[in-house]
Amino acid sequence: MAEPAALEWSTDNCTIERTLEVIGDRWSLLVLREVFAGIRRFDQLTVRTTIPRQMLTDRLEQLVADGLLRREPYQEPGKRRRHEYRLTDKGIDLYPVLLALQQWGGTYLADPEGSPVEFVHRDCGEPVDLVLRCRAGHDVTDNRRVVGRMGPAARRRTTT
Amino acid sequence: MAEPAALEWSTDNCTIERTLEVIGDRWSLLVLREVFAGIRRFDQLTVRTTIPRQMLTDRLEQLVADGLLRREPYQEPGKRRRHEYRLTDKGIDLYPVLLALQQWGGTYLADPEGSPVEFVHRDCGEPVDLVLRCRAGHDVTDNRRVVGRMGPAARRRTTT
Repeated sequence: MAEPAALEWSTDNCTIERTLEVIGDRWSLLVLREVFAGIRRFDQLTVRTTIPRQMLTDRLEQLVADGLLRREPYQEPGKRRRHEYRLTDKGIDLYPVLLALQQWGGTYLADPEGSPVEFVHRDCGEPVDLVLRCRAGHDVTDNRRVVGRMGPAARRRTTT
Repeated sequence: MAEPAALEWSTDNCTIERTLEVIGDRWSLLVLREVFAGIRRFDQLTVRTTIPRQMLTDRLEQLVADGLLRREPYQEPGKRRRHEYRLTDKGIDLYPVLLALQQWGGTYLADPEGSPVEFVHRDCGEPVDLVLRCRAGHDVTDNRRVVGRMGPAARRRTTT
């Protein structure tokens, strides 16, 4: 059997791999889930996750450094000034990743009653689905009809 | 300031968290990337990843146990019978997750020339985009117009 064609191509500039370097860690995504849910303060971020505090500190710092979260100061009466965490546009743009995880989990791992959370369109209240659509305007409902091919930045792999 | 409403709700049956238990690991997703790219055999799976062999063994076993991959026997002339790995339907249904990671990476982390890979519709060859669409038929182009709310399986959090 011939070798798979993909083996000839480099993954050095793979954008999936680069994305996983930023969020390919269960804790980072769980912290983001919480911030997407409107939970923004350090102590609150420990309530629904079992993340160790030092890990949370590290992950928040990294998510800020990567530009997914930004720090916003707040101060409660009689207390010292603190920071809460807000999603940047770059962070908000992870919504499709979150939805893709949730949609797959809803299909394969949900309790019989369904999912605990659903995502809806603010403007009309209807549930939001993630749809694959090609630029000829077709909805691609069968995932086996999708295929990868070399893009503009494809590079041959150099064997070293 | 009032506490965020989300804190009242349990994440015990969160389908995002359950999904991350299955694929929330950089190596699992990189192995899946390779299988999606048509790379199916153990030795080939080590070519474009730096995954240690024992880790690959473990990850493949777990991905089979979780029903994302299945083993298919093959035999080359004069060699012993081996197995290759194929995506099950459950595995193929992770395409939106892969596309979501790739789309975000393409926006924020790609080289100036673009992405090394693009995903296209087999039937017409046109690139496939991931679109958020609500059930009233609106394309949701601004991710800030999406919001989570309690779904059918939402449970109150019990503080222990």
